[in-house]
Amino acid sequence: MTLTQLQEQYELAKAKKLNLDMSRGKPGAAQLDISGDLLDPKWLQPAKTEKNFDCRNYGILDGIPEAKRLFGELLDVLPDQVIVCGNASLNLMYDYLAQCMLFGAGGEPWVKQGKVKFLCPVPGYDRHFGILEYLGIEMVNIPMLADGPDMDMVAEAVKDPLVKGLICVPKYTNPEGKTFSDAVVRAFAALRPAALDFRVIWDNAYLVHDLYDDSDPLLNIFQVAKEQGTEDHFIEVCSFSKVTFPGAAVAAIAASPANIKAILARMNMQTIGHDKLNQLRHARYFGDLAGIKAHMKKHAEILRPKFEAVLEILARDLTGIASWTTPRGGYFISLDLPKGCAKRTAQLLKEAGVVLTPAGATFPYGHDPLDRNLRIAPTFPPPEELIAATELLTICARIAVLEQR
Amino acid sequence: MTLTQLQEQYELAKAKKLNLDMSRGKPGAAQLDISGDLLDPKWLQPAKTEKNFDCRNYGILDGIPEAKRLFGELLDVLPDQVIVCGNASLNLMYDYLAQCMLFGAGGEPWVKQGKVKFLCPVPGYDRHFGILEYLGIEMVNIPMLADGPDMDMVAEAVKDPLVKGLICVPKYTNPEGKTFSDAVVRAFAALRPAALDFRVIWDNAYLVHDLYDDSDPLLNIFQVAKEQGTEDHFIEVCSFSKVTFPGAAVAAIAASPANIKAILARMNMQTIGHDKLNQLRHARYFGDLAGIKAHMKKHAEILRPKFEAVLEILARDLTGIASWTTPRGGYFISLDLPKGCAKRTAQLLKEAGVVLTPAGATFPYGHDPLDRNLRIAPTFPPPEELIAATELLTICARIAVLEQR
Repeated sequence: MTLTQLQEQYELAKAKKLNLDMSRGKPGAAQLDISGDLLDPKWLQPAKTEKNFDCRNYGILDGIPEAKRLFGELLDVLPDQVIVCGNASLNLMYDYLAQCMLFGAGGEPWVKQGKVKFLCPVPGYDRHFGILEYLGIEMVNIPMLADGPDMDMVAEAVKDPLVKGLICVPKYTNPEGKTFSDAVVRAFAALRPAALDFRVIWDNAYLVHDLYDDSDPLLNIFQVAKEQGTEDHFIEVCSFSKVTFPGAAVAAIAASPANIKAILARMNMQTIGHDKLNQLRHARYFGDLAGIKAHMKKHAEILRPKFEAVLEILARDLTGIASWTTPRGGYFISLDLPKGCAKRTAQLLKEAGVVLTPAGATFPYGHDPLDRNLRIAPTFPPPEELIAATELLTICARIAVLEQR
Repeated sequence: MTLTQLQEQYELAKAKKLNLDMSRGKPGAAQLDISGDLLDPKWLQPAKTEKNFDCRNYGILDGIPEAKRLFGELLDVLPDQVIVCGNASLNLMYDYLAQCMLFGAGGEPWVKQGKVKFLCPVPGYDRHFGILEYLGIEMVNIPMLADGPDMDMVAEAVKDPLVKGLICVPKYTNPEGKTFSDAVVRAFAALRPAALDFRVIWDNAYLVHDLYDDSDPLLNIFQVAKEQGTEDHFIEVCSFSKVTFPGAAVAAIAASPANIKAILARMNMQTIGHDKLNQLRHARYFGDLAGIKAHMKKHAEILRPKFEAVLEILARDLTGIASWTTPRGGYFISLDLPKGCAKRTAQLLKEAGVVLTPAGATFPYGHDPLDRNLRIAPTFPPPEELIAATELLTICARIAVLEQR
């Protein structure tokens, strides 16, 4: 299509005065309905743990036994290696990194060590970058390859003792939906950083969030790290936010015994305990990992057609013009336009009433050096709106590309 | 009674092999039952706020409108001045103070200002002291007088620019159950500290926790501070922990517009939002302040006889030997023994199977300079156990006193 034809289509779409939101990785309403039964009071009768502790009252800092066991099974670690917390894994990551700044991770407080740095596989998750920027930790881009971050570059970068860690989503990455290969996970475990207080935030946000029956395989980082004696390098988090209710779920953190001890020492000052009724509700509702997996299939049935609809439109309209990922799980599709076209595309879209994650947001400091990456979040809009928004997206992308020629 | 007679009674009690816990300010089981209806799913039908926001999904950092209004009414501040959060006010205090350490409170980060200090009215709450000690903030004792901290001493102490604040419970103090007089609250508002980043943590934990129909009056700190232009000095927290379920309630923080902005900037990195379903549940369950007050009367009916039973035994056995407070609300009774007798009393009690809050815990660093204060927590044990524990307490106290003579 010529630029003029595309501009005509754009004006037609604009005249519809759309008001669509593809900005965030939020479940749609139909997905929330899947977990409706979670609110049945039967899960809390009686409101006591298997060890007869009253979940209504104060106490139990590290999570109730049945919730620790469930998250242990989910993460394939011992229950003792898990702390079950409140509703947000983001909170666990922020609090852990703030703890490192103030108290260190075995060494001096990071805040006293000068300009500490973190490695950030890009494109990545904007809220990760937000935490690091807020805490004053300098971010260093590491390109994502097909099967994970460029580990040669990581191995080189960690020779700098001011490089204190790396933050990543190992499975169905945000925004690309890639999963780290065995080789990449092993390379993580084998890292020998100059910093003795090096920490990788292993944000396993999408560990059971498959779109298809076969799940992308991901090695258990703690198992591999144990062989290398580098267990202490890894802090894993996950949550039920995109399993039940993002506003009211349960999150957990897994770590080595030494790290669990340091985290509990801080939490013991921070709270008497997290919401145990919500932990009990979730533990009984799912029962075990099989219960979680059966539940996730219902999400997949809703999400799969949405992802496929987007991918179909991208293939139809942008083949030869742009490239994109075809995830088998997670919440996003990553679209790479020609250099210099991402911001313009997002701007055109916005003017036509479709909100995307801001161009640049998938990079530290909101700065995409090539201005080419856009994150597509297909989950929240109902199917018709998703199709309308994606079709408009390809129109805007093609306009941006042609304008540039 | 002679020492020998008391020792005989002690041995008799010891032979009963008691196992009683008077250590923490936990509600008893009967109190938890009061809020049983809170778990009815009817409160979440529909699970949308009054502005039609789906509480099951991500979003709303500062709390849902109906919960902000309810806490606004409770604290007598505008809803805009309130952030409704997760389940623990302790968490809000820790996070705020950690924020001051890392980012300051308008000035340089406290961690960069040298050895910062906090004033601590004593006796006080051990978990407050725990946070300060953990964060490396030096604690300075300020004696409690009949109607609040010695404000002359406070006014003098704040001339030191390293004194960054004070932490207190203004109503039904922990452990004395005292309430700050109007003069004390006005003196707080009138403080002109050398530190421009001075903050008073106003932990209003027991604001509706009356034992009798008439509540101890407490001036609204923000109203008084506004007249003085010192609003920014005050950070108020409260929660429904001892209103509904300590393990699963809702907490809130109130502050000046400038402080709310700074807190939200941090929270915006920390979380996408707190548990809105639990906020909605609580907001609908109570409706308004009158609903909360009616609910608290049910707690008072259970707690009043417990407090009175303890006070009666203290009066019968310890008149002329010790002094104690007679609170009209809150969760504790404070017992002052003769100098040097608190630790010995607690030790004797422990050997006979009764656990108290450790002697010394009501002072910073666990150090009661006169070794005389014990915190009695009458709420958790059932009435018969409470009576048995208190009778043993007075036997042990009298033994400790006589041993010393």
